[in-house]
Amino acid sequence: MSIIELQEKHPDFIIHQHDPLNGNAPLLFLAQEFITPNDLFFVRNHGNIPAIDPLAYRLTVDGMISKPLTLTLKEILDNFPKVEVTATMQCAGNRRMELAEVASIPGEILWGAGAISTAKWGGVRLRDVLIAAGFDRKAQHVAFTGLDHVERLEQTFGFGGSISTQKALMPETILAYEMNGQRLSPAHGFPLRVVVPGYIGARSVKWLSQITVQTEPSANYFQQRAYKLFPTDVNLDNVDWSQGIMLAENSLNAVICYPSVSDEVPVGKLSVLGYAVGDRHNTVERVEVSADNGIRWEKATFLTGSADAWTWRLWEAVVNITPETTRIMARATDNAGNSQPRDTQEIWNFKGYSNNAWHRVSVSAVQS
Amino acid sequence: MSIIELQEKHPDFIIHQHDPLNGNAPLLFLAQEFITPNDLFFVRNHGNIPAIDPLAYRLTVDGMISKPLTLTLKEILDNFPKVEVTATMQCAGNRRMELAEVASIPGEILWGAGAISTAKWGGVRLRDVLIAAGFDRKAQHVAFTGLDHVERLEQTFGFGGSISTQKALMPETILAYEMNGQRLSPAHGFPLRVVVPGYIGARSVKWLSQITVQTEPSANYFQQRAYKLFPTDVNLDNVDWSQGIMLAENSLNAVICYPSVSDEVPVGKLSVLGYAVGDRHNTVERVEVSADNGIRWEKATFLTGSADAWTWRLWEAVVNITPETTRIMARATDNAGNSQPRDTQEIWNFKGYSNNAWHRVSVSAVQS
Repeated sequence: MSIIELQEKHPDFIIHQHDPLNGNAPLLFLAQEFITPNDLFFVRNHGNIPAIDPLAYRLTVDGMISKPLTLTLKEILDNFPKVEVTATMQCAGNRRMELAEVASIPGEILWGAGAISTAKWGGVRLRDVLIAAGFDRKAQHVAFTGLDHVERLEQTFGFGGSISTQKALMPETILAYEMNGQRLSPAHGFPLRVVVPGYIGARSVKWLSQITVQTEPSANYFQQRAYKLFPTDVNLDNVDWSQGIMLAENSLNAVICYPSVSDEVPVGKLSVLGYAVGDRHNTVERVEVSADNGIRWEKATFLTGSADAWTWRLWEAVVNITPETTRIMARATDNAGNSQPRDTQEIWNFKGYSNNAWHRVSVSAVQS
Repeated sequence: MSIIELQEKHPDFIIHQHDPLNGNAPLLFLAQEFITPNDLFFVRNHGNIPAIDPLAYRLTVDGMISKPLTLTLKEILDNFPKVEVTATMQCAGNRRMELAEVASIPGEILWGAGAISTAKWGGVRLRDVLIAAGFDRKAQHVAFTGLDHVERLEQTFGFGGSISTQKALMPETILAYEMNGQRLSPAHGFPLRVVVPGYIGARSVKWLSQITVQTEPSANYFQQRAYKLFPTDVNLDNVDWSQGIMLAENSLNAVICYPSVSDEVPVGKLSVLGYAVGDRHNTVERVEVSADNGIRWEKATFLTGSADAWTWRLWEAVVNITPETTRIMARATDNAGNSQPRDTQEIWNFKGYSNNAWHRVSVSAVQS
């Protein structure tokens, strides 16, 4: 096993930024397969991709625990039962580009709707590790720190974040060393990363170095400043960083993967493809698609089942394209009757998170 | 203990219907107390209020179980540990009146925003009863039937519904015999009712007679026809009853309790009061209130904490009333970044469920 492994991505993978590496697959590729192939899985990094010698690697567990642990990779693999969880991961900044069309969002990557992917993760339950460390049941938060180097506010530190103890103890929350049956690649967190199904990707810390059980959320920049949702009237000039919602679960969302923006579509019946997620992902119960600006809505068919709680649902809807069609829209409803906000204006926020306004794709109708 | 107890409600309790009994407290009363007094707790019945002799009462547990049970009330109280859960209950038809202003909703009670209340429920865990009955872990649903008599489709039967086995096994799901430290009153389900925190009130079946563990959702009218959410273009003429979303969790909602519709409000600073719920209730993280049609939004202060997962949050917001103010609006955001739909038009459905459009209260501004 070489220490440094070149990350291999698909030739059509869209690179938004090389350093740090950020990119995603074209939407049409994402809609093809329930499990995203590793070479198409989106990458969201804030710092370098650390070169980690798996033999020298150690995971420390500290904080409100009775048995501090320093675990080798072999100990993690040998001492805890292996579990597998199929889960969709989504960046909180997915669909930021549409928000930036309302008002500028400086300094952030303008993701389209492709910052989302699904994998079968293999690893050990975080719960099992916390129990082995004798965690204090009065603790409220479990914090993670990575081995990457991120620079913010004139300091260099590892990317970090935290989740509630409640979520940390859920069976779906794991420390993963495998992704779709292969060992994690460097870009995806080799040798070990957190996977927090249902939560924004930022909580699934890569290159995991340290787990700290504590009373408060992580003090890391990416818990205290980034990944906070502020009201529409807040901006960099008036922000109070102690405020804002620390994002946890993903919001209800439906995205059109085919056709793509500016596609020519033939007049007549058209099969529209996409994905949908809920906050517990498979609670999405209905997706509707309109090709006439919302006068009629066609109900989509789910192409993938609802058995797995933590995955997206791929869908297909057949709409009628007329010469007047200029855009296609999609919206979802969950089992609680929640629906999505209609317009990005309602939910614009200066960091550009959690965009789940109705998805709109502009197209040109052509006589075939 | 008399068999028949006259239900005592507050003199200001608003009766929508006498038979079946349906009513709720004025909104301003609801906003006063985190725990709703029993005499103000909303009542939603579909049939009679059965007169049940507690000594003759039996609860049967059947279906996919290895030990069929027939339990007396005394056995339920004596054989299972008592637990208490503070939970908000909300009717799926709460705020139906606003939907009926979009297009008529015949045959349904036009609830305002008061079909919601909070109580401390005392009882036993449904889980403990299911375990005592040796339930089959392959079962997917737990169905409930009440002792009331409801007439629908020319048949008479007990009100019923079901929840997933997963929810049935959660510690918050209980069989309650107490409400705010008092034994259940007849109108609220004496001697025993289900309480399913976070779910629409319809699943918290009253006068519980039978628990059936099964593979499919309940075949009862109130699971298969009522309490289903259909798209906006479906109505009584074209409905396919096999479709529609069987409602489970409550949707994200924020309601203004003060001022009331048509109130005169003085120009200047005004304290607005209300409640908010999420699908797991206390995930509501932000409530915003506007007195200028959405140009500026004031952030509300939560008057009640977030410790309890299954309760509403009462809030207060101070807005500036100007001579131009004609209405006050409220909207909520949860910890996933979900927000509410802006308009009732987007979510109108012919049965009138799950209205969680931004709440609007028309007022008249007066110079004080």
